[in-house]
Amino acid sequence: MLSGGLDSAVTLYFAKAKGFKCNCLIFDYGQRHRREIRQALKVAKAARVSSKVIKISLPWKGSSLLNRKLKVPGLSVSGTIPSTYVPARNIIFLSFALSYAEAIGAQAIFIGAHAQDYSGYPDCRPEFYRAFTVAAKRGTKAGVENRAIKIVTPLIDKNKSGIIKLGSKLNVPFELTRSCYRETKAPCGKCDSCYFRSKGFMEAGLTDPALGIYESKSSRDL
Amino acid sequence: MLSGGLDSAVTLYFAKAKGFKCNCLIFDYGQRHRREIRQALKVAKAARVSSKVIKISLPWKGSSLLNRKLKVPGLSVSGTIPSTYVPARNIIFLSFALSYAEAIGAQAIFIGAHAQDYSGYPDCRPEFYRAFTVAAKRGTKAGVENRAIKIVTPLIDKNKSGIIKLGSKLNVPFELTRSCYRETKAPCGKCDSCYFRSKGFMEAGLTDPALGIYESKSSRDL
Repeated sequence: MLSGGLDSAVTLYFAKAKGFKCNCLIFDYGQRHRREIRQALKVAKAARVSSKVIKISLPWKGSSLLNRKLKVPGLSVSGTIPSTYVPARNIIFLSFALSYAEAIGAQAIFIGAHAQDYSGYPDCRPEFYRAFTVAAKRGTKAGVENRAIKIVTPLIDKNKSGIIKLGSKLNVPFELTRSCYRETKAPCGKCDSCYFRSKGFMEAGLTDPALGIYESKSSRDL
Repeated sequence: MLSGGLDSAVTLYFAKAKGFKCNCLIFDYGQRHRREIRQALKVAKAARVSSKVIKISLPWKGSSLLNRKLKVPGLSVSGTIPSTYVPARNIIFLSFALSYAEAIGAQAIFIGAHAQDYSGYPDCRPEFYRAFTVAAKRGTKAGVENRAIKIVTPLIDKNKSGIIKLGSKLNVPFELTRSCYRETKAPCGKCDSCYFRSKGFMEAGLTDPALGIYESKSSRDL
């Protein structure tokens, strides 16, 4: 599952390094930061893996990531679920991934979720993935026939700087990834996602190559 | 969750009878028996409830219900999962329903699944729904905040004749429902779904009003 952000790119390169033949699913779910879809396609291309964009229509909004009338908040208050939470988003994504995995006979689904360092999204917590794994086993032909599809979350216990260090070792093309929640061309630098990315690179002792691009040229094609 | 078939119509009328204000989700997922979508809309209209059609694209096939190059089988061999199984279909549907329920603040999702009397679909079994309920609780804001959305399966322990008897009591407009898996205008009478429907009406001692329509007139608008 590839989003265009940093975490899923590291996850893809991790899966590749483990010897998996990867097929990426990218979700176009009406997110206001649609630029990430283009970036996801670039990451898949750089990694030389196949990719499919799945269009999902959620005619109910209920999230500042979907509803352009709401404001994407700045850094959220710790301990609360922010307005960028999209109801059951990762459950929907995982369901599609599960269907795809079962249809092509894949062994595992890799997802770059991690609870730590992030904004308290319930569908990024390990206890959710454990529960979903059980549901997936009981609700699929593959599961019933003892070929249950694994849900692999290699980043689940890592913080952002740990993820960036891992990605750096795996030669992830960070310059192709985009984390910002806002629709602006250059990352806003103010939303949760920008904040944690910037903090992560700093703590890892590395420079974010994506920012360099915006500073050094006014690229039309980021 | 409304399909146009008999089970989900009975489930809708059951939920209404229990005092729920219902909002129906109908899924257009590329099923070859697309006629059921039209019937679902008619059932929702008859029940005077709101409905939304959600278009889902599954670019992988892997099921005779989606792939028109495959044949919808006749009555399946007992104990096997038939080719009409769509990978993770009910998990995808439930995920959308969960997202919708959370976005509008609904208390429960009603689904007309039942394992008994059907074709051994893993995602129709009670153990799947129990596991999905746990995943839904852990993966949603509503669940984390102790407003977990219930997954209600009122038909889960019933057989087809029991469902038809219940529907008859609830005045379900069976004539508007359609069960056949095939794309033909009149129900084929030969697929699993037609077989169990016909057997169910017989065992309930009732006549299927939908069949009557096809016998008595060549209606264009069924």
